Amino acid sequence: MPRLLVLLLLSTLASHARDLGRPHGLVIHGGAGVIARSTMTPEREAEYRARLAEALNAGYAVLERGGASLEAVTAAINVMEDSPLFNAGKGAVFNADGICELDASIMDGRTQAAGAVAGVHHIKNPINLARDVMLKSPHVMMVGDGAEKFARGLSYELVPNEYFQTDWRREQLKKAQAKEKDGKERTAAIPDDYFTRTLRWGTVGCVALDQAGNLAAGTSTGGMTNKKFGRVGDAPIIGAGTYANNATCAVSATGWGEFFIRVGVARDIAAQMEYKGTALRDAAAATIAKVGRLGGDGGVIALDAAGNYTFEFNSPGMYRAARLSNQPSVVAIYGDEATR
Amino acid sequence: MPRLLVLLLLSTLASHARDLGRPHGLVIHGGAGVIARSTMTPEREAEYRARLAEALNAGYAVLERGGASLEAVTAAINVMEDSPLFNAGKGAVFNADGICELDASIMDGRTQAAGAVAGVHHIKNPINLARDVMLKSPHVMMVGDGAEKFARGLSYELVPNEYFQTDWRREQLKKAQAKEKDGKERTAAIPDDYFTRTLRWGTVGCVALDQAGNLAAGTSTGGMTNKKFGRVGDAPIIGAGTYANNATCAVSATGWGEFFIRVGVARDIAAQMEYKGTALRDAAAATIAKVGRLGGDGGVIALDAAGNYTFEFNSPGMYRAARLSNQPSVVAIYGDEATR
Repeated sequence: MPRLLVLLLLSTLASHARDLGRPHGLVIHGGAGVIARSTMTPEREAEYRARLAEALNAGYAVLERGGASLEAVTAAINVMEDSPLFNAGKGAVFNADGICELDASIMDGRTQAAGAVAGVHHIKNPINLARDVMLKSPHVMMVGDGAEKFARGLSYELVPNEYFQTDWRREQLKKAQAKEKDGKERTAAIPDDYFTRTLRWGTVGCVALDQAGNLAAGTSTGGMTNKKFGRVGDAPIIGAGTYANNATCAVSATGWGEFFIRVGVARDIAAQMEYKGTALRDAAAATIAKVGRLGGDGGVIALDAAGNYTFEFNSPGMYRAARLSNQPSVVAIYGDEATR
Repeated sequence: MPRLLVLLLLSTLASHARDLGRPHGLVIHGGAGVIARSTMTPEREAEYRARLAEALNAGYAVLERGGASLEAVTAAINVMEDSPLFNAGKGAVFNADGICELDASIMDGRTQAAGAVAGVHHIKNPINLARDVMLKSPHVMMVGDGAEKFARGLSYELVPNEYFQTDWRREQLKKAQAKEKDGKERTAAIPDDYFTRTLRWGTVGCVALDQAGNLAAGTSTGGMTNKKFGRVGDAPIIGAGTYANNATCAVSATGWGEFFIRVGVARDIAAQMEYKGTALRDAAAATIAKVGRLGGDGGVIALDAAGNYTFEFNSPGMYRAARLSNQPSVVAIYGDEATR
């Protein structure tokens, strides 16, 4: 059986080579929240899975050719920003004034450089502007018109707000506003369930590890449907929605942003690894449990420099996917889907 | 010597009573940076010391009558916001458009509730609005016009931007802009020394511990002179400029905001206590060392639930003061002033 021996040898060599190569890859999310099979058509579900796979592959292609994790994060997030399916870029939710208002942030695990934008209305890919705030300005965070002025200085083409607007998100706004008028004026500290538990999901994010061993994380969102008063959630807050440090991990969060800011979710996961030596998955689980104890929900994706990753969420579902060089790929939506 | 005995007895009783009462008190800062004796007149120095003492006493009075640490934080910060000496409220620095643009945040150590505003132009006491975002909205952070719309809904009296503007800050803007024109256009990632090391200081903050054992922290600022593009620093970022948790500590930061966001300064100090059991002072020193290694400067005030506090800064000076029920009070400016 020399043929079998050869095959065995080749397979062993191939697996050995794969093990010897530095693990690299990325993990993405397209938001966490109430995602029930009962409200999803097979066509829509297939669309989500296809778009998640496309984003995953766009990022992976960057890493496979030796590109930087920062570039992979941007490439993967751009696919989701450009898709009307997710609450980021095109297809973002509407705020109370009936327009789309976008936030994003990015962080470089090698240098802890970071960039963020909040409340922009005309930037096609907010994650790119966050990256340019990091790379081309002395600042970390820019908000509103100022951020767009900075973009114009870099020759960004500004898009009309209509570019982001989709009918189904407009419908969500109408429903939210009707519900609000219907005696449920959101003056209490706790917003109603409809508002908070079904309309938030869709924030997108990515964490990546490149062949040089560098981690990066990014998050992009349209925030909450019917949001008022220039509300900013956790997505553009470094340490809350986004964090990356080669020494610990890269994290992107999605969920009820107010709770994620208060807990400082992304940094809290890294801090447990840094100061207590906790493993990635245990740290992420402990932090999401902390969010849950305060009354919040949502989830994170997290990846460490050894290529370990985790999806952790306390919501019924999370659009999520991972492709690592040393592990089988996965694309999942519902909470009960096996991802290992 | 019965008289001496009586005195001794009284003194012992008094000291015993003081030790038995739960420690309470507050620590404040009025900004860190280059504060040289050579550039300070005795009159100006006396003014600073008087205003710091006034802020300290305003907060202490709240605590002494059994008031909440959140209220003490607000009271102390209001005094500094209302004084033209500090870069917060009246006397804030000018942005590149020649107006004052204010940020603030506050956090409740008992509940981890938090509130923040950024980029407001007409709110006399931004820390009060941050508190109301925390207490009277479902959100944590509001920016720009939206935040002011929220304030109008709460019947805040909006002040004209001229209220905040002072001649010496206008002079600083002119100098910064002249320097910028003078071939030092700040397009590089690292701003020039003049801009970053001498014009930033003045952010104000307070951490307080009340008789019920609850910690709170707050920070208020005008940001950086000549800031552009809707730049937001660390002051309104929960976990960076402000953090409070009864289980660990309350922190308010001041310094080169970009570095403080990247390190997540306030939360990093608390995280060392939470996950490694580090003592307050050691944790604060380690975090400021981290900021220094990245190239940033500034400082923090931090206070734990046992009434231990620390001033930690790597800048030449920091306007600072503390008054605790179980320790002597202190008001200091220069780095070489003993504060213990």
